[in-house]
This record gives sequence, C-alpha cells and structure tokens, in this order.
Amino acid sequence: MFPKKKENNMESMGALRRTHDCNTLGLDNLNQEVVLMGWVLRRRDHGGVIFIDLRDRYGITQVVFNPEINPDVHEKAHQLRSEWVLAIKGKVEQRPGDMANTKLKTGDIEVLVSELTILNTSKTPPFPLDEISEISDNLRLQYRYLDLRRPEIANNLIMRHKAVQTVRNYLTESDFLEIETPMLTRSTPEGARDYLVPSRVNAGKFYALPQSPQLFKQMLMIAGMERYFQVVKCFRDEDLRADRQPEFTQIDMELSFVGEDDIIGISEGMVKAVFKATRDIDLEPPFRRMKYDEAVARYGTDRPDTRFGLELTDLTETLRGCGFKVFNSIIEKGGVVKAINAKGCGTFSRKDLDDLTNFAGTFGAKGMAWIKIKEGEWQSPITKFFNEDELAAMGKALDAEPGDLILFGADDASTVNQVLAELRLELARRLDLLDENTFDFLWITDFPLVEYDADRKRYSSVHHPFTAPFEEHLDMLESDPGKVKSRAYDLVLNGNEIGGGSIRIHQPDIQARVLKVLGIDEEEAEDKFGFLLNALEFGARPHGGIAFGVDRLLMILTGSSSIRDVIAFPKTQKATCPLTEAPASVARKQLTELHLRPDWKEEKKE
Amino acid sequence: MFPKKKENNMESMGALRRTHDCNTLGLDNLNQEVVLMGWVLRRRDHGGVIFIDLRDRYGITQVVFNPEINPDVHEKAHQLRSEWVLAIKGKVEQRPGDMANTKLKTGDIEVLVSELTILNTSKTPPFPLDEISEISDNLRLQYRYLDLRRPEIANNLIMRHKAVQTVRNYLTESDFLEIETPMLTRSTPEGARDYLVPSRVNAGKFYALPQSPQLFKQMLMIAGMERYFQVVKCFRDEDLRADRQPEFTQIDMELSFVGEDDIIGISEGMVKAVFKATRDIDLEPPFRRMKYDEAVARYGTDRPDTRFGLELTDLTETLRGCGFKVFNSIIEKGGVVKAINAKGCGTFSRKDLDDLTNFAGTFGAKGMAWIKIKEGEWQSPITKFFNEDELAAMGKALDAEPGDLILFGADDASTVNQVLAELRLELARRLDLLDENTFDFLWITDFPLVEYDADRKRYSSVHHPFTAPFEEHLDMLESDPGKVKSRAYDLVLNGNEIGGGSIRIHQPDIQARVLKVLGIDEEEAEDKFGFLLNALEFGARPHGGIAFGVDRLLMILTGSSSIRDVIAFPKTQKATCPLTEAPASVARKQLTELHLRPDWKEEKKE
Repeated sequence: MFPKKKENNMESMGALRRTHDCNTLGLDNLNQEVVLMGWVLRRRDHGGVIFIDLRDRYGITQVVFNPEINPDVHEKAHQLRSEWVLAIKGKVEQRPGDMANTKLKTGDIEVLVSELTILNTSKTPPFPLDEISEISDNLRLQYRYLDLRRPEIANNLIMRHKAVQTVRNYLTESDFLEIETPMLTRSTPEGARDYLVPSRVNAGKFYALPQSPQLFKQMLMIAGMERYFQVVKCFRDEDLRADRQPEFTQIDMELSFVGEDDIIGISEGMVKAVFKATRDIDLEPPFRRMKYDEAVARYGTDRPDTRFGLELTDLTETLRGCGFKVFNSIIEKGGVVKAINAKGCGTFSRKDLDDLTNFAGTFGAKGMAWIKIKEGEWQSPITKFFNEDELAAMGKALDAEPGDLILFGADDASTVNQVLAELRLELARRLDLLDENTFDFLWITDFPLVEYDADRKRYSSVHHPFTAPFEEHLDMLESDPGKVKSRAYDLVLNGNEIGGGSIRIHQPDIQARVLKVLGIDEEEAEDKFGFLLNALEFGARPHGGIAFGVDRLLMILTGSSSIRDVIAFPKTQKATCPLTEAPASVARKQLTELHLRPDWKEEKKE
Repeated sequence: MFPKKKENNMESMGALRRTHDCNTLGLDNLNQEVVLMGWVLRRRDHGGVIFIDLRDRYGITQVVFNPEINPDVHEKAHQLRSEWVLAIKGKVEQRPGDMANTKLKTGDIEVLVSELTILNTSKTPPFPLDEISEISDNLRLQYRYLDLRRPEIANNLIMRHKAVQTVRNYLTESDFLEIETPMLTRSTPEGARDYLVPSRVNAGKFYALPQSPQLFKQMLMIAGMERYFQVVKCFRDEDLRADRQPEFTQIDMELSFVGEDDIIGISEGMVKAVFKATRDIDLEPPFRRMKYDEAVARYGTDRPDTRFGLELTDLTETLRGCGFKVFNSIIEKGGVVKAINAKGCGTFSRKDLDDLTNFAGTFGAKGMAWIKIKEGEWQSPITKFFNEDELAAMGKALDAEPGDLILFGADDASTVNQVLAELRLELARRLDLLDENTFDFLWITDFPLVEYDADRKRYSSVHHPFTAPFEEHLDMLESDPGKVKSRAYDLVLNGNEIGGGSIRIHQPDIQARVLKVLGIDEEEAEDKFGFLLNALEFGARPHGGIAFGVDRLLMILTGSSSIRDVIAFPKTQKATCPLTEAPASVARKQLTELHLRPDWKEEKKE
C-alpha cells in the first residue's frame, strides 16, 4: 500500500537526517545505524526496558530504550506518551527469536536507541488511534487530523491519489489535455440549486459555482482542443443525504469527432487502469451493455446491481382479466403487475414477510402480495383468487419451484419498478449475495431524451438539454418527444452509477428544437445559454463526453461505507465542517461591500 | 509541440473513422487512403481545382478537390467556407516539386479528395483566425472559442497541461500524495478579501472560498500525511490588475520533518523537470540564494530581476554631511541616498532624462537627480553643490567612468528602494537587457518575520502568521520583533516571484507568542484559528512547505505578455466573463433562500 520512496528523498530535521521510514527496516539492515522519526503509538515497560512502537505514514517500527545502552536516554524515555513526536538514532538488531512479530513488516527487528530528540509533545487524544472503535462522526470530523492518523482512513487517501494519478496519466497518454475551467462562473442549468457568490465589483450580480463544467467543455471542443479532461470540483446546494457532499470531484472529459464506442472504449481502458493500479485487479473490458428499457424491465431501475439475479418478471399480460380484483383493477387502469421469484426463500417466516412488506411500504407500495411455493400447494392469502390456469401461467412465467417465494408489486409502472428494485436489493442483502470483491460493470444506453414532469406540466431532460437525440428519431421530436431516444450512456458498477455522458448536439438548429421541446422559449434560451447557441453557429465539431464521480468510485474501490471516508475534510449532513466551524458568521462590513443586507434573525451580541 | 497520439486512439464519426491528424502525413504515406477531419482554414481556387488548408489541433494538411477525380465532390466543395467542419477521404500524393511548402510539416504532400462529408457550417468569424492581428481583449474573450483556435493561444494550453502533468508526476515519484482540500471553507487570514458563499442551510453563515489551503495542509501534516501536494484553485477578491485574476491556480505542497534545504531541493528538481518537459531547457540547480537584506540593498526589492546588473549603490554614508542640502537634510532625517550607475547611458537626451524623471515620479519620487559622467567633467545641475572629495568618493563608490549616467534616489529607504528598483527595470527595457531566453533563478531567504504597519499601528506578518521565526531570534520576539528573521523563502525568476513558502511553527507556545506580537488577542486567535492552535497540541510534527503560481510560471514559460493568454477562460479586469456574461443577476427567490436581501438599486424590469 505504501508507495516506494525515492532513495534521494530523505528528510532532515535540524541536525538529524531521517534515514528510513518506519516500514522499511528488516534483517538486511542488521547493525546499521539509522535515524527514524514518527509518533509514539504504544509504549510498554518490561523488565526496566522501554519499548515504543514508532509510527509514521508508512508503518511501525519497534524502538527500544535500554538503560545499559544509554542511561540518560532511557531516563528521558520515561516521559514519552502516546502521540509524542520523536526523532531517534539507534542500531538495528534482530529481535530475540520468540519475540518476532510476523504481523509487522519490520517485525523481525528492533532499533536500540542511542539518541532521542523529542520534537513535540501531545495531549491525550480524545479517542484511541491504534484500534477501530465506535466514535461519533462529529468527533471524528472535529479532530480530523487525529482521525486521519488511523491507517484505514489514511490508506483511503493514498488510494485516492493513486487512482486519480492513474487517470491523469492514462488520459495524457491518450492525447487528452487537462484544461482548467472557471470556478466563478454562471449558473448552468443542471437542475440542482447553485451555490452563489456575490460580486463586489458588479453590484447585484452573482457568480455561481459550477455544478459541472458542461458548457465550458463544449466550448473547448468548439475551440478545437479535440480531447479535454479535468479532475474538477463541482458544487450542488442540495439537501444532503449520507452519500452526498456539497462539493464533489468529477473526472470530466470531452472528445471531438467521436461516437459512443470511442468514449466507451476510452472509459473502459481508464477504469481498467485504475483497478489495476489501486487493487491489482484485472478487469476485462468490453463491459456488457444494456438498453435503458431492458434494464428497467428486468431490474426496475437504470442502475441495476447485476452481481445477482432475482430479476423482475412482468405478469401484466399474464394476469389481465384475472380473478384477483386488486390486480385486475390496477391493470385495467393502465398499471402493471410484476414479481420477483426469490429462489429458495420459501422458508421466510411470517415476520420476515411483514418486514419486507414494511420495507416495500417505505418506497411507496400500498401492500405486498406474496406466494410461498410448496410441494403440491401454493401458500398465500391471495392464491384463492386465481384459477388453476392463471396459477399455472404465473408459475411458468416465474419458473416457480417448490421452496421459492414470489413477491408481487402492483401499481403504476414507476412505483412497481421502484419498489421491486429496492426489494430486490433488500433480498440480496438478506441472502448475502453482495460480494464486495465482485465488480460487475454494465453500460446502460438508449436512454429516453426527455421525460414528462407531471408537476411542472412539461418535459424535462433525462440527461441534460445538450444531449443528442437519435438521428432517426428526429422526426418524432415535436410530435412524440417521449418516444425519442438519446445518445446517452451511463456506467453502472454494482448498482452505483459511477459515470455518465452523451454525444452532444453540435447543430444549432437541433439544439434550438430540443430547447423548445423542453418548454424553454427563445428569450430564456438566449438568456441562459445564448453563448452556446452562438458558438454552435461557428463551425462546432461533433463531440461527446462523459464524467465520473471520483468520490463514489473511491468508496467502492476502498470498500468504504461512506464517501466521507474517502475525502480528507468532508462536511456533515448539515454541510458544516466541525473542524474549522465553517460556515461562519462574517462582519456586517463584508456584507455591505457585497451590496447585501441580512434577512435572518441576528443573534444578540453580548 | 503536439503530443504523440496513441495508435489505438483513432476517432470515428458516423461511418467515417479518422485515420490521421492534420500534422502527420508525409512522403511515407504516399498513395495511402486516409480520412482527415478538421476545419477549413483557407480555400484557394486555382485552374478549376479547389485547394483547402484543413486544420485540427495538431496542424494543417492541404486537401485538393479536382473535378477529374470526382466531379460531384468538386461541385460540393464550391460551397466550403472558412471554419466549416469537414471529414474527407482521399489519397495521399506528392505535391509537384515546386509546390512543396517547407514551412508545413505536411508540406510535401496533399490529399486528393474522393469523399467529402460536411459535418458543420460556420458563420464568418468576427476576427481572422489565420493571422495575428490586433483584436480587442473583450472581443477575444467574448468569442474565446474562436480565439482558442489560434495556435499561439492553443499551444499555451498544451504547454500548461504538460507543465502541470510534469509536476504531478515528479511529486508523485517523490512520494507526495495529492490530497484535495475544501473549496467551501472558512475565511483564512491571508490578508486579502475573501469571496463569500452564503449558506442556505445555516442562516446567516457564510463559507469563504480559499485564498490558499494553508491551514488544511498544516492539518494534513499534523495528520501524518508526510508529503502533501495539490494543484489547486485559490481565490482573492482584490482589485484586479493586469496580472491578477480573481481565481488562480497554485502548486501547493507541504512536508514533514524537513528543513529549508529539503524544500528548496525538491522545488528545484520540480522546476528543472518542468523546463525540460516544456521547453527542452536544461536548468542547472542549485539556484543561487540571497538574503532578503542583501537583495533589498542591491536591487531595492525582494524580487530582483538578476538577468542584468545596474545594481543600487548606497551613498548615504559617503554623502552624510555633504554640501548638497537636499541630500543632506534627507540623510539627517534618517533617509537614504542610493544611486544606479547606468553604464554607457551618458548619451541619454534631455528628453530621455525627463521621461525617466516622470517615470520615477509615478512610483513616489519627488524628483530625480542625475549626473552624466563625461571625460574631464561631470555634467549635471547638482555637481556644483559637491566638493572635489565628495565627487571623488561618489565616483569611486559607483565605479563611474566616462560615458556613464548616474541616477539618484533620495528619500526614506522604502521609497528610494521602490523607485530605483523600478528605474532599474525601466533602464533594462530601454537598453534591451531583458533576454526572454535567459532564465535566472534566485532564492530569497532570511525574510523579516514581521513589519510595522504604520497605518494600523501594529506589526503584520511578512509571509503569514504561521511562519517559523529563527530559533536563535526567539529572545527578541517580544522586545524587538522587527529584528526577528523568519524561515521563509521565495523563488524569484527574472524578477517574478514564482514561489514562496516557509518552515512553519509546530509548537503551540511559539504560535501563541507570534500571534500576540501580531496584536491578535486570545479571543480573536481562538475564533479565527482555534482549531490550528488546538491541533498543534496533539503531537504536531515539524513541517514546512511552499506554493508556486501556475499562471505566472506559464506566462514566463510561454513568453506571454499576459496571464490571460495561459488561462482557457480568464476574466476581465472587472472580474467579468464576456463569454458567459458572468456574474449575472439571480432571481429574488434565490436570495431569499439564502437569507439575504438586496442592498443595491435594482434595475427596473421592462
């Protein structure tokens, strides 16, 4: 895990010059005089001798203070406490045969100390650093500089560096240029809320922090930069969930004169390189591809976890006109009935089924029908409503065998899909089907261009307004926009969307038509992205791109349960930083300079 | 200049697949069938044949439409105009002997076109793209996507990518980890004005965009990350000058257990690698070092351009009590008299001298005494005030010879130094001493820790409050702070400060003492950087770092006259973006969500 140090990069500290890190010394170094620097991890006193585990970023070495070597140094060593910072000089010796520690890379040796410099002392840390323990997230973030000393978190940052550096080298070798785009920019229509930055010089005007560099990277293609990438911070002022941060990092790229296969091919090569560099795993692209419609039909979602089966079966046509009124009336109103055959789950208890029903309820299910398939009989409160033919047809469609459990969803299509997609994941968790060491990649393609937003009574983009429609669907753009497919693609890994992109529109007339379908009139279009429409008029080249979420990818690579564990200084769910106490109050004068007045109840100053 | 393309990275466009870029084909490719994509740079019709210079990021290839090859394609080619986007298929042929263009890499060949796809048309650009012409900055930024098509600007971005990628690889190999620090953070006391970001969730609270990641990188050292770097955007809401942008990019690094020599050594290696990769120049570190006091004495500034001489000579002691009352009274009041011997400038006209005097005036000089050294006589309005001994002493101190011109500065030390430092540069410009291909590096060390700010009546940091004082000067910290030197260092290149840093304070008690000297009381210290003081208590290791300005460095590397030419989407001096029209107005609802009210005269909506 620890990177190899360059021979010529030793560090000095005053008169002492560090000769090795704490993960290097072994039997090859016997009798050498060395200088180590690091923290006191643990101290043990044994038979008048003091043993210290000295720790740095690289590892741990045992150093020994023996009064027979140097009584003064031994005396001084009595004061040492956890997390004090030391520089020691000493001789490498083999540990007595039975004292070797096979768990440590340096476990065969110890360093007999002849000189000790105490570089700093330390208060007692508020939580132990040498063991994994349950600590509140808030305390961890408040003392992040201590939390980061724990190898499990430190190693995440090391892996993050490796992953991103691998990406940069891969893309550079593939002729990409990393080009920085502005942070202080204009609101781009990504759908989420912008973070705003008031301008002091331009009264009443605001910058927005970018939600993505989308329009700038398109500008760079129009500018002829051919292959652009950037590892870039993006911002969304959304309500935070466990896996969201107000600022996040994206691997963003855009290419000219390309089709889907080019972008997919480069992405696959990049991901393969990252997995090799960070986990020594050999992925074997090309990854599978699946059309959006098929993914939704089979898994209820466009980001299916394909490490396991438990697919959805559509029973709507099988059961149309069936004897079960609940299903029948849903089908007649245009709804659907789908089911999962949970193979071998016929042993689930009544309580299990109640739990699953409640779980389904949190995703909008009004109930959950189920059938246990037993030898010779189907056990369920609902079987009595079906006739033999209907049961047989269902059994056939679901490939039902004794020992199986069938779970039903019946409602409008979107509710059924969501409920069963989540139930499917829940079953996988209960059946322990989510293997952390399986990495199942899947491209989802052929997304719809737009979807109807019933609340706003207009169409909105499934990806974004710059995504190219299928050329052969252009005829339907105005007449039946919901049927138009787009040249978008997402990369899904184990149920997580880790990347997404599209071929963009490069013809100004088509861009104008798409904006119109989205209910954006000319004035609004001109105001919001007039500069893009203008740029498309000046010889824009065909182009497309993709963006990957670094935080999410690293969470999967490191096997972390939260993206906070792969970010050096993450924010809480309330978007605060317990370490620096950001955000903070500012002087009234600063607001005045920004041409703003407060609109909140100010706390009384004491 | 153009990077080598990977063989397997060809791009496709519909049915056509690009086989080569426009800078590749030569006599080795004769009779090959190729597909090129790019823009129409120029079109010439000659004897019924149409010649097009086709351009992409890499270069230019001449493609030929001959009615005898394919009359339909030739007919279609008649419509082609500048900046239209083409894909062409054709055969590589040698140009007729006298038609070869030795200026072009592909000048030996041309491509006889058999198939033409017009990928996009273009309006006529508002300025020509194939020649360097005087265009207003505003127009260039408004149509930045066209401006960037010009090779001189595009090549700057290519070099920028190369430089930064070289830095990343160099530091990665030297065991550094790139670690991202937050953009939404808390105001750090860097002295300049912060850009603020109002928090929606936390009413009345504000994030600040970082002026530098200073405190976070210190936290990372205290966290044991040992060697950190980051290429990172930083922000300052200052009044803009030609060479300043509201957002700028920094190569930021910090190391544990190090002294000045370690950081200087790594910096030198990094700069050497960058110059080799971008300009194929072999620098030869170690670079010279000079103490702050010496630099100010000899050049009047702590960032001297050392490509030429014209050093300052201090005449204060030589002239103390001299016959020239103006000088004498300045010296008696504690001021100084310094002079530059402009070797060989004795031929300057009266107008030249008037211009120089006016120039000096803009930097605060109340006048400018001068002496022309002629054979046998010194020509000047002021020589009559000095006696023979005084003249001789001056002549000796200045090494004055016939043909020289002496320029004097007499005032308080800081004014004299500033005026003469600028005069020195102006002389170098007039004498054409600023060789663009000489790169003269100089480390400035031993800075004062603090300087007295007469306006605020307190001391302020010369670098920043976390810079370590010389250990041997700690005794004077409270009694004579102005005399304390600090462990800071700047790297100066041809008169530009391209990097600066310091060894930091790692002991909490010394940090507290320095803050006190700066007039920061305990409450303010606790409020502003309590978390740093707290962190120093928990086994902080000795550490130090440095930061380099990427924009400035690239400006020098590319020989650009403005940093705007090395930034893809720079802002104007009013901090606006003519392309996107950022900053822009926002909806009142957005302000309300941020708990803010306007404090500006709102324009009436029509």
